Amino acid sequence: MKEKMLKSRGNKTENIAPNSVLIYGRHAVASALQNQKRIVNKVWCTTECAAEVKNMLAAGKRRPDLINVVERKVLDAMLPNDAVHQGMAITAQRLKACQIEDVCDAAEDKDNACVLVLDQVTDPQNVGAIIRSCAAFGALALVVQDKNSPEESGAMVKASAGTIEFLPICRVTNLNRAIEKLKDAGFWVVGMDGYAEDEISSISKGGKIAIVMGSEGKGMRRLVKESCDQTVKLKMNPKVESLNVSTAAAIALYEATKA
Amino acid sequence: MKEKMLKSRGNKTENIAPNSVLIYGRHAVASALQNQKRIVNKVWCTTECAAEVKNMLAAGKRRPDLINVVERKVLDAMLPNDAVHQGMAITAQRLKACQIEDVCDAAEDKDNACVLVLDQVTDPQNVGAIIRSCAAFGALALVVQDKNSPEESGAMVKASAGTIEFLPICRVTNLNRAIEKLKDAGFWVVGMDGYAEDEISSISKGGKIAIVMGSEGKGMRRLVKESCDQTVKLKMNPKVESLNVSTAAAIALYEATKA
Repeated sequence: MKEKMLKSRGNKTENIAPNSVLIYGRHAVASALQNQKRIVNKVWCTTECAAEVKNMLAAGKRRPDLINVVERKVLDAMLPNDAVHQGMAITAQRLKACQIEDVCDAAEDKDNACVLVLDQVTDPQNVGAIIRSCAAFGALALVVQDKNSPEESGAMVKASAGTIEFLPICRVTNLNRAIEKLKDAGFWVVGMDGYAEDEISSISKGGKIAIVMGSEGKGMRRLVKESCDQTVKLKMNPKVESLNVSTAAAIALYEATKA
Repeated sequence: MKEKMLKSRGNKTENIAPNSVLIYGRHAVASALQNQKRIVNKVWCTTECAAEVKNMLAAGKRRPDLINVVERKVLDAMLPNDAVHQGMAITAQRLKACQIEDVCDAAEDKDNACVLVLDQVTDPQNVGAIIRSCAAFGALALVVQDKNSPEESGAMVKASAGTIEFLPICRVTNLNRAIEKLKDAGFWVVGMDGYAEDEISSISKGGKIAIVMGSEGKGMRRLVKESCDQTVKLKMNPKVESLNVSTAAAIALYEATKA
């Protein structure tokens, strides 16, 4: 891939080959290089970061000739405005999504398992932050509807603090059908809904739980809500309309996975 | 204030008078105009948003001649890159910080009260998100050390989703001294520390609680940690280094304020 291809004027987006992703920032780059399932095409870094990035390549058993030492302004130009790249970036293939059947299989032998399901959460940074919380609380997978969910992007990888490298993400065509499969696999499906009667602390602990979250403004779609076994709300000061969806997701994951 | 003053080349920052703040985005602007304690200097909006912003001015009992209808590109130019302004922005005075004595006085007659204390959290978006969670969980105030905390900014106001307009923020010179005052006022001071033995769910419910959080990388400073009555950790997957500080704060607030 030529540098030129990566440059564009004005508000730059990730202007790279389809199914590729530009990953930037120390934590995100180190985690991607460490992940043996991540196909890495090229590595860019500044002179100051070259030694560090060479160590990352060695640690990930990657070819040292992937590296391209460039000036900081080249990195600035290839990345979105205000991207905190810390002197390093890579182009890589997007990670392969898993199937809902894989998630159900992985849960089969487990007494406790938690899955997060997102309905129409479109902001890549929120999705990245949610991936980080899923990983932190040991969720088995994140399930999203393929059509209305952002593709893996540099901003998402950065917001995930590298945890996207090991958290399985399942992109499904039909969310209701995926929820039915989770139910068949023994998951109790709990939807987050501001109008619910039960509070989130009433989620029963232990067993297999799937938490469903809608978008910040609109919540879950009607059919998705109806497919839940239970809906719960987060009790809040009535002066505050809502929490950020990634904050609400973290609290739900915390509550569902605590012993 | 002249438009010219607000324009700059390249990566724009909020290039306005000291102690002023550029607030942008529908929710943030509406909340600021509604807040009678907020001194508003000027209001900018696009033609499409003029009717909506006029209603906001009327709702906030503001002079209609504050409004300046401008082209979208003028708003783009006066605001930071990638700022989602939704066609409206205002320049206003920063809100006045409160004193730690005010916080203690406000808690005096209360059986239950929660205060969040931040040690060295420097990212304005994290602070804004934390303000939103404080407001959502009914915290009495946010306490920060003046020296190492970001000043109120457009990014912070936006991340707070307008809740900065009613959440008291206390900027203190010495955080340890503020913690001592909170203790004298009957607060139990709980610090968040990844190396603590107790888990966060062990925070005793009810009464007056102050939660202290350090920065994401470094945690609380030693003296701040030593001034806590108790330290607690958030149990996490060992593969994940940390949660975002605003996510961890939200979980702590949720746990400390639930009935």
